[in-house]
Amino acid sequence: MKVGQDHYRSIWVEQGAVRIIDQTRLPHEFVVVTLDTLDRAAVAIRDMWVRGAPLIGATAAFGVAISMQADASDEGLRRACEVLIATRPTAVNLRWALEDMAAHLAPVAASDRAAVAMARAMAISDDDVGINAAIGDHGLSVIREIAARNGGRAVNILTHCNAGWLATVDWGTATAPIYKAHQAGIAVHVWVDETRPRNQGAHLTAWEMASHGISHKLIVDNAGGHLMQHGEVDMVIVGTDRTTAQGDVCNKIGTYLKALAAMDNGVPFYVALPSPTIDWRVKDGVRDIPIEERSGDEVSFVQGKLDDGTVTRLRISPETTPAANPAFDVTPARLVTGLITERGICAASAPALAAMFPDRVGG
Amino acid sequence: MKVGQDHYRSIWVEQGAVRIIDQTRLPHEFVVVTLDTLDRAAVAIRDMWVRGAPLIGATAAFGVAISMQADASDEGLRRACEVLIATRPTAVNLRWALEDMAAHLAPVAASDRAAVAMARAMAISDDDVGINAAIGDHGLSVIREIAARNGGRAVNILTHCNAGWLATVDWGTATAPIYKAHQAGIAVHVWVDETRPRNQGAHLTAWEMASHGISHKLIVDNAGGHLMQHGEVDMVIVGTDRTTAQGDVCNKIGTYLKALAAMDNGVPFYVALPSPTIDWRVKDGVRDIPIEERSGDEVSFVQGKLDDGTVTRLRISPETTPAANPAFDVTPARLVTGLITERGICAASAPALAAMFPDRVGG
Repeated sequence: MKVGQDHYRSIWVEQGAVRIIDQTRLPHEFVVVTLDTLDRAAVAIRDMWVRGAPLIGATAAFGVAISMQADASDEGLRRACEVLIATRPTAVNLRWALEDMAAHLAPVAASDRAAVAMARAMAISDDDVGINAAIGDHGLSVIREIAARNGGRAVNILTHCNAGWLATVDWGTATAPIYKAHQAGIAVHVWVDETRPRNQGAHLTAWEMASHGISHKLIVDNAGGHLMQHGEVDMVIVGTDRTTAQGDVCNKIGTYLKALAAMDNGVPFYVALPSPTIDWRVKDGVRDIPIEERSGDEVSFVQGKLDDGTVTRLRISPETTPAANPAFDVTPARLVTGLITERGICAASAPALAAMFPDRVGG
Repeated sequence: MKVGQDHYRSIWVEQGAVRIIDQTRLPHEFVVVTLDTLDRAAVAIRDMWVRGAPLIGATAAFGVAISMQADASDEGLRRACEVLIATRPTAVNLRWALEDMAAHLAPVAASDRAAVAMARAMAISDDDVGINAAIGDHGLSVIREIAARNGGRAVNILTHCNAGWLATVDWGTATAPIYKAHQAGIAVHVWVDETRPRNQGAHLTAWEMASHGISHKLIVDNAGGHLMQHGEVDMVIVGTDRTTAQGDVCNKIGTYLKALAAMDNGVPFYVALPSPTIDWRVKDGVRDIPIEERSGDEVSFVQGKLDDGTVTRLRISPETTPAANPAFDVTPARLVTGLITERGICAASAPALAAMFPDRVGG
């Protein structure tokens, strides 16, 4: 999406070079990095210059392509996949992208591999853009209906964390309907949850909205309920890391609290997701999805910029106070108004999901 | 309560001198300040070295007493009240304490005023301690019951913001039952919400718990719902700035979200309050309590300590991103299990409150 006047993807090829945005420097600096070696692609993934499942997958695919330019042998291909999978071994999209690249390149002659790999990485990127654009179009219909009822008042949309274009190749998932509405001339205003502890809302979603010129305000994670009580939120849209076969949604910690407030105030609560995030083997998300417990330092310290421009971290609590840091929570399907997928919008229920994805259910 | 081995109040008299803790320096530094002039007492209130309605009231009373040592004339008394009321003109307890002091001192001869004023300020402090100790004893009965059912497992209590002894003269309101339980030998573990944007949980409640030696963990405001879903919270206790005649509770922003999660998971949600915080003129809190909108800078910046020990602030969001900052929210009575007052525990309803306070209702 836009950064000022220019349109960017989160990963792109420019004069033959693969480029990304170093997202660890946002929102304080916009730094474009060229990935010119396998090692640099690996560092970009491992050190979270890029994050978000779809973008990690695309970066891994480009990492293989870059590697083929230096060494297109079978051994070179094997080694590229090995180096890249080790960067974030639990990332499902990373593994999927590498398996796809390896399968595509295995039968290709070494002399053709660099070109084929680059084309395949671009296709993976384009596929992600297509999926998110479709999510955006389906979500747009919901925003359009609310706008029609609002009598000219801007549609107030609350989002949590960053399920934006920075987490995908373009459009984002939760943000795709917002960008589409903006593009369609519908007035929208976005409440951006800061999303402690890692502040992806304050660091990334706020930056996306500001860069694209979409009206928005940053709020603390505590504020959404109050805004909903007072009619200041027309709908909630969030992303998801994993969706169960019955429509339970595992997303960034705090999502569940917003869903409860939405239900209590009759505010529609939508979840935007590319269908590969549906885990058909799991039904009861609260019971069966293990939640990652991350370092307490993410809670005890906050990242930001000093008045003199230095980016650093601050300790906010006593040295003697331990912190607990569950990274995700599960929002039960009963609190979800609808799932916005690339095929359309469906209810968060096993029958509705099965009807939307008859080719996948049970898979 | 305890700071290491020593017992402190938040305001006290030592060898004739009035002392406070500069709470703006917590949790990184424990600094005791002597209030030896009227102006210094006024600065302590205005610059929030002391905060919390009961402590502000007590500090104002001591401010008058200190002032009487320098000028006990009628004009001196009038001026002291005038200077002190101007520090935080909307603080109800401040006004009440000054009116009480003025009424007590008016009929007293100037030569006796310094001694009478000091005695009266001490009595106001002691009254607050008595009220909070009574809240603690009533709340203790709830914790004791849970402990009895827990079969030896520590009672997990979640609290939001700081309704601790630092906000009162001693014990605190929401924390009083916790300190009483700890004193009674009941194992308790406290989940401390950091309480963005001002981080009173991370700065003050965590410090209180660490200083008193109570088992606790800091969590982000997003985490409580997830912990409740997984049986990690036995009860919630929060304080309140204002309680309506029907038991709606106005407290720090985010309280409502925790109350929703408690209800959704069958976790008891208690509110501890000294009865003067009941506003008998208001019934529907969501509709009728105006919510203070504070500076967006509290959201855009975070206070804390650098690795080198410097206490400073960081910007977390883009300069171009505006922030909204509603400071409080209202938790409807239907979500409140019980109100813990100095007279006992009652349901959050108009009849129950009227029955507990027949001498106040309609007042």
